Amino acid sequence: MPATPLDSQIYGALLGDAELRALFTDSAELRAMLIVEGCLAQVQGEQGVIPAESASAIHRASLELQIDPAALAPATGRNAVPVSGLVAAFREEMNAPEHAQFVHWGATSQDIIDTALALRLKRALEIFEARLTRLLATLADLSTRHASLPLAARTYGQTATVTSFGALTAGWGRPLLEARRDLGRVRDACLKVSLSGAAGTLAAMGPEAPKVRAGLAEGLGLGLPDGSWHADRRGPATLAAWLTQLAGALGKLGGDLHHMAQSGIGEITFAQGGSSSTMPQKANPVQAALLGALARQVVALNTVMQGSLIHGRERDGAAWIAEWLSLPQMCLLTGRALSVAGDACATLAPVPGAMARGIDPEGTGLIYAEALTFALSESLPRPEAQAKIAALCMEARETGTSLAALLARDHPGDWAAHATPEAQLGQAPAEARAFAEAVRGDG
Amino acid sequence: MPATPLDSQIYGALLGDAELRALFTDSAELRAMLIVEGCLAQVQGEQGVIPAESASAIHRASLELQIDPAALAPATGRNAVPVSGLVAAFREEMNAPEHAQFVHWGATSQDIIDTALALRLKRALEIFEARLTRLLATLADLSTRHASLPLAARTYGQTATVTSFGALTAGWGRPLLEARRDLGRVRDACLKVSLSGAAGTLAAMGPEAPKVRAGLAEGLGLGLPDGSWHADRRGPATLAAWLTQLAGALGKLGGDLHHMAQSGIGEITFAQGGSSSTMPQKANPVQAALLGALARQVVALNTVMQGSLIHGRERDGAAWIAEWLSLPQMCLLTGRALSVAGDACATLAPVPGAMARGIDPEGTGLIYAEALTFALSESLPRPEAQAKIAALCMEARETGTSLAALLARDHPGDWAAHATPEAQLGQAPAEARAFAEAVRGDG
Amino acid sequence: MPATPLDSQIYGALLGDAELRALFTDSAELRAMLIVEGCLAQVQGEQGVIPAESASAIHRASLELQIDPAALAPATGRNAVPVSGLVAAFREEMNAPEHAQFVHWGATSQDIIDTALALRLKRALEIFEARLTRLLATLADLSTRHASLPLAARTYGQTATVTSFGALTAGWGRPLLEARRDLGRVRDACLKVSLSGAAGTLAAMGPEAPKVRAGLAEGLGLGLPDGSWHADRRGPATLAAWLTQLAGALGKLGGDLHHMAQSGIGEITFAQGGSSSTMPQKANPVQAALLGALARQVVALNTVMQGSLIHGRERDGAAWIAEWLSLPQMCLLTGRALSVAGDACATLAPVPGAMARGIDPEGTGLIYAEALTFALSESLPRPEAQAKIAALCMEARETGTSLAALLARDHPGDWAAHATPEAQLGQAPAEARAFAEAVRGDG
Amino acid sequence: MPATPLDSQIYGALLGDAELRALFTDSAELRAMLIVEGCLAQVQGEQGVIPAESASAIHRASLELQIDPAALAPATGRNAVPVSGLVAAFREEMNAPEHAQFVHWGATSQDIIDTALALRLKRALEIFEARLTRLLATLADLSTRHASLPLAARTYGQTATVTSFGALTAGWGRPLLEARRDLGRVRDACLKVSLSGAAGTLAAMGPEAPKVRAGLAEGLGLGLPDGSWHADRRGPATLAAWLTQLAGALGKLGGDLHHMAQSGIGEITFAQGGSSSTMPQKANPVQAALLGALARQVVALNTVMQGSLIHGRERDGAAWIAEWLSLPQMCLLTGRALSVAGDACATLAPVPGAMARGIDPEGTGLIYAEALTFALSESLPRPEAQAKIAALCMEARETGTSLAALLARDHPGDWAAHATPEAQLGQAPAEARAFAEAVRGDG
Repeated sequence: MPATPLDSQIYGALLGDAELRALFTDSAELRAMLIVEGCLAQVQGEQGVIPAESASAIHRASLELQIDPAALAPATGRNAVPVSGLVAAFREEMNAPEHAQFVHWGATSQDIIDTALALRLKRALEIFEARLTRLLATLADLSTRHASLPLAARTYGQTATVTSFGALTAGWGRPLLEARRDLGRVRDACLKVSLSGAAGTLAAMGPEAPKVRAGLAEGLGLGLPDGSWHADRRGPATLAAWLTQLAGALGKLGGDLHHMAQSGIGEITFAQGGSSSTMPQKANPVQAALLGALARQVVALNTVMQGSLIHGRERDGAAWIAEWLSLPQMCLLTGRALSVAGDACATLAPVPGAMARGIDPEGTGLIYAEALTFALSESLPRPEAQAKIAALCMEARETGTSLAALLARDHPGDWAAHATPEAQLGQAPAEARAFAEAVRGDG
Repeated sequence: MPATPLDSQIYGALLGDAELRALFTDSAELRAMLIVEGCLAQVQGEQGVIPAESASAIHRASLELQIDPAALAPATGRNAVPVSGLVAAFREEMNAPEHAQFVHWGATSQDIIDTALALRLKRALEIFEARLTRLLATLADLSTRHASLPLAARTYGQTATVTSFGALTAGWGRPLLEARRDLGRVRDACLKVSLSGAAGTLAAMGPEAPKVRAGLAEGLGLGLPDGSWHADRRGPATLAAWLTQLAGALGKLGGDLHHMAQSGIGEITFAQGGSSSTMPQKANPVQAALLGALARQVVALNTVMQGSLIHGRERDGAAWIAEWLSLPQMCLLTGRALSVAGDACATLAPVPGAMARGIDPEGTGLIYAEALTFALSESLPRPEAQAKIAALCMEARETGTSLAALLARDHPGDWAAHATPEAQLGQAPAEARAFAEAVRGDG
Repeated sequence: MPATPLDSQIYGALLGDAELRALFTDSAELRAMLIVEGCLAQVQGEQGVIPAESASAIHRASLELQIDPAALAPATGRNAVPVSGLVAAFREEMNAPEHAQFVHWGATSQDIIDTALALRLKRALEIFEARLTRLLATLADLSTRHASLPLAARTYGQTATVTSFGALTAGWGRPLLEARRDLGRVRDACLKVSLSGAAGTLAAMGPEAPKVRAGLAEGLGLGLPDGSWHADRRGPATLAAWLTQLAGALGKLGGDLHHMAQSGIGEITFAQGGSSSTMPQKANPVQAALLGALARQVVALNTVMQGSLIHGRERDGAAWIAEWLSLPQMCLLTGRALSVAGDACATLAPVPGAMARGIDPEGTGLIYAEALTFALSESLPRPEAQAKIAALCMEARETGTSLAALLARDHPGDWAAHATPEAQLGQAPAEARAFAEAVRGDG
Repeated sequence: MPATPLDSQIYGALLGDAELRALFTDSAELRAMLIVEGCLAQVQGEQGVIPAESASAIHRASLELQIDPAALAPATGRNAVPVSGLVAAFREEMNAPEHAQFVHWGATSQDIIDTALALRLKRALEIFEARLTRLLATLADLSTRHASLPLAARTYGQTATVTSFGALTAGWGRPLLEARRDLGRVRDACLKVSLSGAAGTLAAMGPEAPKVRAGLAEGLGLGLPDGSWHADRRGPATLAAWLTQLAGALGKLGGDLHHMAQSGIGEITFAQGGSSSTMPQKANPVQAALLGALARQVVALNTVMQGSLIHGRERDGAAWIAEWLSLPQMCLLTGRALSVAGDACATLAPVPGAMARGIDPEGTGLIYAEALTFALSESLPRPEAQAKIAALCMEARETGTSLAALLARDHPGDWAAHATPEAQLGQAPAEARAFAEAVRGDG
């Protein structure tokens, strides 16, 4: 694989993401930088900062010029940033020095690079939104359909009480719904134009500077920052934090899929399992494992992005370059996680028989111990009821007799009515349905 | 030092934070859990879930009982959570078994622990807000007073162009202002009641369950979640992400203080410097270093909190206990960073002479190279102007002559007018003042 | 809980570690610093750097003086480091100015703090070694006893082929054995004296400096570094990396315990399970969950320690103070993990019936699919054998018939002989025994 | 840029690393997997596990076959691992089913993938060693040449005492020398064959299994593990820890370069500085910034690698796939850091005049305060000497008079002899030379 399997052909169908990858290529980056330079000239022409004719010529050229990424390598190697090289190539390719001199007027490399990134992130967030919407619709559907399908809840890996499969899928979905609702805030934070000139003051652009900045924002469909963000990395850090919470929520979903698909549990099926190179009977929950791996990597890379908030003075190369090493990957990893989760959930089906076995594997109904304690507490003080049920749990385990039957033996009553999955769903169905309604209400 | 210097007496005046530490003690945790149990009983009494008389008795007892933290250790060691032990102690201390049996009715340990944490976080966020407000007022004041005080901007550690000291302090402040504005969202996310019973369904509380939950939220002044958050850790993770961005912003502030206070730069003074055990002339910028250390630690601990979003099924001990190991520290570290930054900035003063020397150490005015390029571009094509100025920069360096003078020699004109700090402040004063106004506008 | 539950009384039996905690207290730190100052004076007396009589007086005082940690707080708050305050208190308490003036002669704070830490880490590593030895003995014993006890191996959570329980416990143990073997290297790296004076040159100590440093190392039983390590943080970083790998290995052990103790799997028992505050039937594998939490926290804190390798110039307060915030915790967390794993494994017992059910839950023997493929490949080309067995797997699943019987139906032969756990243990017993022998061989 | 700028053409000269990248490509991975399968067959032929003729045919084919990476994508997408697809393609391309059936006999995907990685890491470690050797030679040379060149040591960013430039470069080099010395241990840990079959027992390979494993190790020039390492990830984690410490040491070097090249300090020059897209006078220390970014990213990715030690049961897809996302990058990032540091140091030159100014910018000689305290302590009690010098420091600052002169005024004596850089170098020259000798001694 290349530096990362995200770029590998071998792993293309596992980890590749054609739609998002198209935003993180050399040519996409070049194209976006050219768009920024072109729009900047256009706005500066309108504001009289540069000659209108030159502005038009630059804008046109920015749409038409073909610049070879590899040709920028030497200058980028020297300067760390490709913009000087790009401006030089632009001027040369344009072949109209009287206009070309006005390219990149008063801007600095970071303005162009950060704005060009924002342009691509704008599209990335649309893709995330669409994938979230698809996944949320699937989860809403699962939550509705299985709102009352009993499932053994597990705490510390141990059977606890009854819940419903729909409540579980709703629990996966709620953070995703919030992630979608949070998109406005995230867009406000990171889809901003950067135009602050050499070191944050935009001095070279003269008194028209604020108008140029506002015009550029409008022209590119980006927001206007509250000041120079060369050294104030809230935007990228906020996006990274959002991606991390999203990837984490998908990691939980994947972990639960992995858990429920285990041999000996088998409460769900999804997708076609991966096969082994040597074991014919195997069907591995590849998507579930993948979600776990993607989430871990995103969480780790977030450390870099948050650490880069500690950005030295007006521009800090170490902190900024570290962002380049982390943020594109975080987008691709999280985007892939959304697709993988979407595919897995689209084929997800409960195995009600296995769920029923999980609730009461021995026929002793131990899962109803808490419920019977409360029922018994109506006639006995609760500590006595607790002690009684705890003792009967042991007896039920040893004898294989049903807990409700043992209780009826000692305390006559219709305890069996409490000891059914349906009687013990509590708020699970309501929570499942409320989630589905919330998804639809937002849609 | 103890497990962490945050708890040390030796390091108490360096890293201690009495106000916040009071929220993270054994007794504060116990007290908060008792308040939750007491309020729960009260609400359950009102809803008829438990007898009103017992509810009153429990509520009263919750305010009066003294429970020894150390006495809970054995049960906590067995169960990982202290609530079983607490309930047992409560019942015993209460000495009224007919009422005591209704303590903790239908709740689970996680409900009590997470809600008791939310109660304390509520107070912690008030403290953060107050400290943010103090620091923002200081920064607004600095930004106003020094809006036009020229300072050499530095990119990659190199003198770039002129900015103003007020623009720098405004740049420190903008992320803090946003952090304060973001508090509403963060409170909504993490100041929520948890009441979902054994495994998320609240089944044991019967049909009144939603009313009890709503009543508990109201009684405690906490928000109502959109469902069980036993396994949906958005709340703690959102708080952790906010703390991380805040600590990161303070780490940048500290880094800049450290940078500007360096020997050979000395553009600022603040506080009384720390002294060396062996070097009489030293005055170390201790607070600046401390801000760096605090930020790093918070960024690293955030990894745990975001990783704990990957929470298995209905309760995952490993993920949850990991939160206990990280979140209190993150609060204390970030809170301390706010105080340290507040103290440092309260005494922060620019050294205008050093700033002037930083702008033009050799009297050659090289910092005006960009400005002169643009000025010269009015009469020469920009690439020629760039080449000309670049050549003159070399000559100025070699001869110690002023760049503007050299330019005037070759291209007569009043270049010196461009080559003053005041002429090159650009948007710096406006950004500094806009920040100050934004702070005051929010107040 | 206090800043961290490691210091809490409530959580004392869960997370506390009296033996290691004794090394990380204010008084232990003070005592260690006094020992270093006392030994330094003694060696300087021997080398004629300070008067012999003063050296004796200081050495004696260093053993006798009682200094109040809290009294050092104000100076520590100013200077970040407690040594100036300690030296002042020492001089005052000593009440013999003619001798006291020679305390801390030529040393710097970092020398004292880092050396005092090394002294305590020396003891910590002895504790780690003893705990490793205990745990390794337990695992060696388990591996020997259960070397041939069949267990279903799981890959991606799915039953794969047969292994043995002893092979699993040996797999837990091998990294721990290596950790013990690696202790020599780790001690060499981190148990070093630091004595480099104000800024690394030891200039104030004159030509005898190297002899004083060597004498101090010998006097304290610490190693001699290859140069000043004020700014070369290999030692602490190497210890942190070792702790991380150890905690990670224990996290894997805990994860496997958690997995095997799950409801529906139940292949092991260990310790007494934790009880629920509301569910009488629950027995939570608290120790397994705890190992997971401890490992996560250690891995995250390691980021700080490795990041602190990026230490600026001759002393970098931010990087160094960050170590204080992380390393003591890492020791306590990892030490606790060793104890918890030791306790869990000491009571660990396989449940052979559940293991047998895990191997062949349906009586279809699908776990032998790979083995039967190889057996069949003796008479059929392997791809045909693979396809045949894959088809029979499906038939076995559908009909509940044994795979070996189905194969015998189509290809007469004694396939059942291959389809037993004992026939398929492969190298598992040998690996289990080899580990046990390696542990004993090292002992 | 692509997923990571490591793979970008634009950033190729900044972040690219042709030599190491050649090891991390789809075709290199395929080639390595084919070599492993070919060698496995050969060894199995020798051991009589498969027919000798088939073994030869497979071995030959493994060297000759061309397999298209993209053709493996669909199967890899399903199975997470490319080996099933590769084996199928191998069999088909070989066009000799009677032999091809013996490909991958008894192995599992993880055996092939992990061993193929080890093969490439072997070469990577040779590259690291060569780069370390080059860099160490450069640093040894710098340390020798500048062993006694005075430089102001800085602690907390403040001028402390005198050291030498050679002592600084030796301090950069010592951790690198240790990294080189540590290579044997790292190779032992990570350059191991993996051959443990479906789930760790190698059962399908029969009693010859250990011989086959040993033969494969010998054939590939890799080490023999102490057991199955499918789930025991010490090897990759040890390599990651080594890379992290190496990257951290290079990050410190980069940080110091960045610091010393700062405007206003300018104590060194190196390489050609990067130019700004808008500021003609700028020369940015691009390589220094880059080293900082690379180190941060490596430290963060190490979290994933250490976290993957927590590997579930016999194979854990999430933990394993996470390694793929991190380890290749860590190799490329650290390898690049070695090259960048090598290039920077090859051109590194001190600026003795700036260093002299840094030592005594005002001519007051405050840097000698500690030295004068010790000198004065020969005639005054040390606390009095300290107080005296502290008072004179203030006077020197206010009056601009030399500290030694002020002292001579009050306490006649030849204090000026102490107040020279040469008199205060202490152990710096010796440490610088000792490092250089150690490098040469190892060579």
